Amino acid sequence: MKLQVTQENLNKALSVVARVASGRSTLPILSNILFRIEKNSLLVSATNLDIAITHFVGAKIEEEGNITIPARLTQDFIASLPSGTIEINGQDNHLSIKSGKFSSTINGISAEEFPVMPGIVKGKDWKINCKEFKEGLHQIVLAASSDEARPVLTGVYLHTVNGVLFAVATDSYRLAEVKLTNTSQEIELLIPASAVQELLRVLGDEGEVLVSHDDQQALFKTKDIELVTRLIDGQYPDYRKLIPRSFKTKAVLPKAELASITKVSSLFARESAGSITLNIDSKEKLITIHSIASQLGENTASATAEVTGDGSVTLNSRYLLEALGVLQGDEVSFSFNDKLDPIVRKESENSGYTHVIMPLKS
Amino acid sequence: MKLQVTQENLNKALSVVARVASGRSTLPILSNILFRIEKNSLLVSATNLDIAITHFVGAKIEEEGNITIPARLTQDFIASLPSGTIEINGQDNHLSIKSGKFSSTINGISAEEFPVMPGIVKGKDWKINCKEFKEGLHQIVLAASSDEARPVLTGVYLHTVNGVLFAVATDSYRLAEVKLTNTSQEIELLIPASAVQELLRVLGDEGEVLVSHDDQQALFKTKDIELVTRLIDGQYPDYRKLIPRSFKTKAVLPKAELASITKVSSLFARESAGSITLNIDSKEKLITIHSIASQLGENTASATAEVTGDGSVTLNSRYLLEALGVLQGDEVSFSFNDKLDPIVRKESENSGYTHVIMPLKS
Repeated sequence: MKLQVTQENLNKALSVVARVASGRSTLPILSNILFRIEKNSLLVSATNLDIAITHFVGAKIEEEGNITIPARLTQDFIASLPSGTIEINGQDNHLSIKSGKFSSTINGISAEEFPVMPGIVKGKDWKINCKEFKEGLHQIVLAASSDEARPVLTGVYLHTVNGVLFAVATDSYRLAEVKLTNTSQEIELLIPASAVQELLRVLGDEGEVLVSHDDQQALFKTKDIELVTRLIDGQYPDYRKLIPRSFKTKAVLPKAELASITKVSSLFARESAGSITLNIDSKEKLITIHSIASQLGENTASATAEVTGDGSVTLNSRYLLEALGVLQGDEVSFSFNDKLDPIVRKESENSGYTHVIMPLKS
Repeated sequence: MKLQVTQENLNKALSVVARVASGRSTLPILSNILFRIEKNSLLVSATNLDIAITHFVGAKIEEEGNITIPARLTQDFIASLPSGTIEINGQDNHLSIKSGKFSSTINGISAEEFPVMPGIVKGKDWKINCKEFKEGLHQIVLAASSDEARPVLTGVYLHTVNGVLFAVATDSYRLAEVKLTNTSQEIELLIPASAVQELLRVLGDEGEVLVSHDDQQALFKTKDIELVTRLIDGQYPDYRKLIPRSFKTKAVLPKAELASITKVSSLFARESAGSITLNIDSKEKLITIHSIASQLGENTASATAEVTGDGSVTLNSRYLLEALGVLQGDEVSFSFNDKLDPIVRKESENSGYTHVIMPLKS
């Protein structure tokens, strides 16, 4: 292979792709990235067998070919070069890279050995706005489980209900659901949360992403990038019945204030695994959090709120803080039904976003 | 005790002091900070028995007293409070803290148990500009050893030579010396590098620092802060004879260019513990670095320089990069005498800063 690329373009592609290549794999080729020429473009790919990412790089191609080279060294090396044109020359599994007064030879492995993800057979295709897709996934992926004992809960579930595409994640302690878009197709797929995290990292904010999927894998494709992931096999729980639709007690207040009193209270909840008790008082129009650390001391913090009903509920302060962290808008609505009912807060009645936190016994 | 302080002032003092209190100590009082009233100020102190830091906080004092409270909780709690006035009330080893709708009680330990560093007896006093002191120490402290087997090398040595105060550090692989100031006093003290790191963290850029020291400890005092450290006992090596005063080979070039070719070369030196060979060529007016990774590949990188003499030398790329990282100015002079002589580079002939890196066998 023989080509010229700019340092800027190649560096950008490597920064997107190289992270997927693992230095810890027992299969040496998985710590390499693939350089491949296709239709006058340089394609840079990496895979960990669960997901594969390819970045297209505009290049001046003089000779076709392909090779795999160590991901970490190549990324660090290209990142250290000055901006401008880089000349790349591949022969016999050695890649020579030249830029001004820098000249390197990197030893590679034959591209024949690089594992290719199987193609998508008889799949479905649909498109979604990149920015909306990213924002929605970002608001829910935190609720996915990391416990491999129940694989379905380690995924993000995308499915349609009455012409609306929803994304949801739950680790059984909390649940987040977001409305993504309206669609006329029937869509159902369960994407590993780790692949969703990579997708959030590599997707830009511009344009649309084309999603193609069959039962085994999904492909997410934009102008520059392709990400292929295996899908999780299994029946997602019927989570919608867990979301209460009416509430006895509710407080509406600025998000920053609820976050502030929750954060302060959580400091005194370290001895009790983050457990805090929220009390809503309709007479005083106050939401008050009390936490006690038997060794260190105790804390009470309040904020003024628009209140309906009275009551109190105990939950994990970390879950509440993380939920507030991904919530959009300036106002939050915090609602519940008695002590042992799930708790929900939405940013506004029709925001399309719901976050349920299971209560702790108080 | 009873007082009022602003959240801003108390938060600043805690962020300076609390880090010194260790949560891992077997002595519980060492994970606490001391609140003490003295002459209408609140003094906030922490110690790890090696060093002690005190920060003065302007406050409205209503009642004298003192108490110690957990450092981490107190720091996190005060940092989470909104800005404005905080009311502090101490009684029976409990400290109550109130700010708007936040109200806490923190359980403390009697201030009687807090260890006090011994005072300085028959010491010397001298002053130095804060900014110059910090800049100088920052340029040399990286060369101190972390190996407790030779305690003197874990220190930063301050001493006077012919009316000039120098600071120096060496781990026997590299040595850095900086001229601090002119003085008429005879000064000699050996400060633990860890205390110098804390000093760099807590000293501001304004005004002067007053240094008082005897054989056992040193006190560094500014308007707001006092830092006391024990000193290291021992004879510092006669390092000055290790600094060559004339050179056979020398290259002068932009610092950024030497850093760039060193960084790129170091990527290919990972298999050889960072070993790189620098070659200076007076005919081509080039400094060239060559590095080989038997597995991964090899690299050559050059930069144009103003050159005197020819030769090559092998050294650890990490030491060269770290030295370039603390060097001031845009130009660097890199000099040596044959393969096995020490290497020196100064930013300019009279900069007052010298950094020697011992060569590796090539």
